[in-house]
Amino acid sequence: MRVATIRVAGGTRAAVGDAEGWVLLDEADAQELVAGEGWRERAETALRGRTRQELDPGAFGVPLPRPAKVFCCGLNYRDHILETGRAVPEHPTLFAKFADTLTGPADEIRVHDTAQLDWEAELAVVVGSEVHRADRDEAAAAILGYTVANDISMRDWQQRTLQWLQGKAFDATTPIGPFVVTADELDPKAGLRIACTVNGEPVQDGNTRELVFDAADLVSYVSQITRLRPGDLILTGTPGGVALGMADPRWLQDGDLVTTAIEGIGELRNRIRSA
Amino acid sequence: MRVATIRVAGGTRAAVGDAEGWVLLDEADAQELVAGEGWRERAETALRGRTRQELDPGAFGVPLPRPAKVFCCGLNYRDHILETGRAVPEHPTLFAKFADTLTGPADEIRVHDTAQLDWEAELAVVVGSEVHRADRDEAAAAILGYTVANDISMRDWQQRTLQWLQGKAFDATTPIGPFVVTADELDPKAGLRIACTVNGEPVQDGNTRELVFDAADLVSYVSQITRLRPGDLILTGTPGGVALGMADPRWLQDGDLVTTAIEGIGELRNRIRSA
Repeated sequence: MRVATIRVAGGTRAAVGDAEGWVLLDEADAQELVAGEGWRERAETALRGRTRQELDPGAFGVPLPRPAKVFCCGLNYRDHILETGRAVPEHPTLFAKFADTLTGPADEIRVHDTAQLDWEAELAVVVGSEVHRADRDEAAAAILGYTVANDISMRDWQQRTLQWLQGKAFDATTPIGPFVVTADELDPKAGLRIACTVNGEPVQDGNTRELVFDAADLVSYVSQITRLRPGDLILTGTPGGVALGMADPRWLQDGDLVTTAIEGIGELRNRIRSA
Repeated sequence: MRVATIRVAGGTRAAVGDAEGWVLLDEADAQELVAGEGWRERAETALRGRTRQELDPGAFGVPLPRPAKVFCCGLNYRDHILETGRAVPEHPTLFAKFADTLTGPADEIRVHDTAQLDWEAELAVVVGSEVHRADRDEAAAAILGYTVANDISMRDWQQRTLQWLQGKAFDATTPIGPFVVTADELDPKAGLRIACTVNGEPVQDGNTRELVFDAADLVSYVSQITRLRPGDLILTGTPGGVALGMADPRWLQDGDLVTTAIEGIGELRNRIRSA
């Protein structure tokens, strides 16, 4: 099943869908939807009984728009780690974003005061039920599903100090969506192609089978530290091919179009607007 | 004025006070209180008209318990930076915590799976009004006030990777309070003693006049990145004297009592409980 938040006149609505299209539900967004008891049965009933509609890419908002916690993992693609001559890490490298950092899958990304804007295509894991100090199996059971994100980074801010947060947390700069594919329908460990283009030029082309810490590993690890709740997010890191890794970095500029796609989920298309 | 959240039967209540005691208000907590229009006038009226009550230290909860953003600044005490031979930084080093990381000013701190538990006495800045891309003056005007925090840190987790977050974000391990002193009554830049003891032994003794980035600097800086709202927090860093800096670190153990005090505000008293 696919789960999304759709922008409608005067607000947003939760929606569920499949390959044939979408059905709007009563809830204001997908986060409210999945927090409700028995949501999956209601969603399945709605999908059986109602006519699907097509939706414009611009209609999709942040799928679950109010995470209390957004964790991001760095250095998590084995092939990329090895090609840069580093050792495969024993523990995930974690940093945070905020709900305000997120923006919709087709939104413009408005930035200011940065000269080193970079892309990072990432698989995002969406938490579907409360989980604390969980083992891998419990963690896997708490995953609602997966979506696409791009951890757009201000490298000049990120590298001002040892801690990356300030280059990763500008408001409305991390596109995510267009929808969540539930975990029963997708297995990132089996291998999903993840790719990023800038103005149509391929810049990243990786595969989620290369994740050192997979979705269940990360949910379990983070849950040792803090209780995760429905809507919380973990971004799983990016494969090789970012501007920062180039001898002569090609930073993102005003007007650039960034696409971010994961096989079996969908695609983000975001235009950069630099003030 | 002092602003607090008080634990009462069945929940919590906002309270305002002064040196003579406390008056409970109708709002469920201080965050709800300060989000309301004209709260300060209502609070002043309540303080004029009603009899103060004394409150037990254990009655105080996290003053503003639902920050959407908790920023922390590292490496921010000039005297301590210089004594360790480092240069005074050009930019603040920032990392995040979550609302769930906070705990009350007299609560036990329950930890697990750490062998390197450390203290970090810190001045906390509480945001009182929405602020985005603000200069120093606008930032100063958005500060509700100041409280005491201790950025209790799991150094073994903190040092697993380059990013500190995972050693700083265990649930209910950062005590904060006991109340907020409003900004009109306190000037950390003029110098407030900040001290930490463990089982009565002094371990930290600094002064907020040594802050490289003061409260207005930090609110202004963070507001370039993200919009801050009432209840959001910035912890301003810790002076010298943490266990991590000792040749033979004295890590916190089960049963240890940590006190954290800032002149003109108050004191945290937290017992460590290690599972």
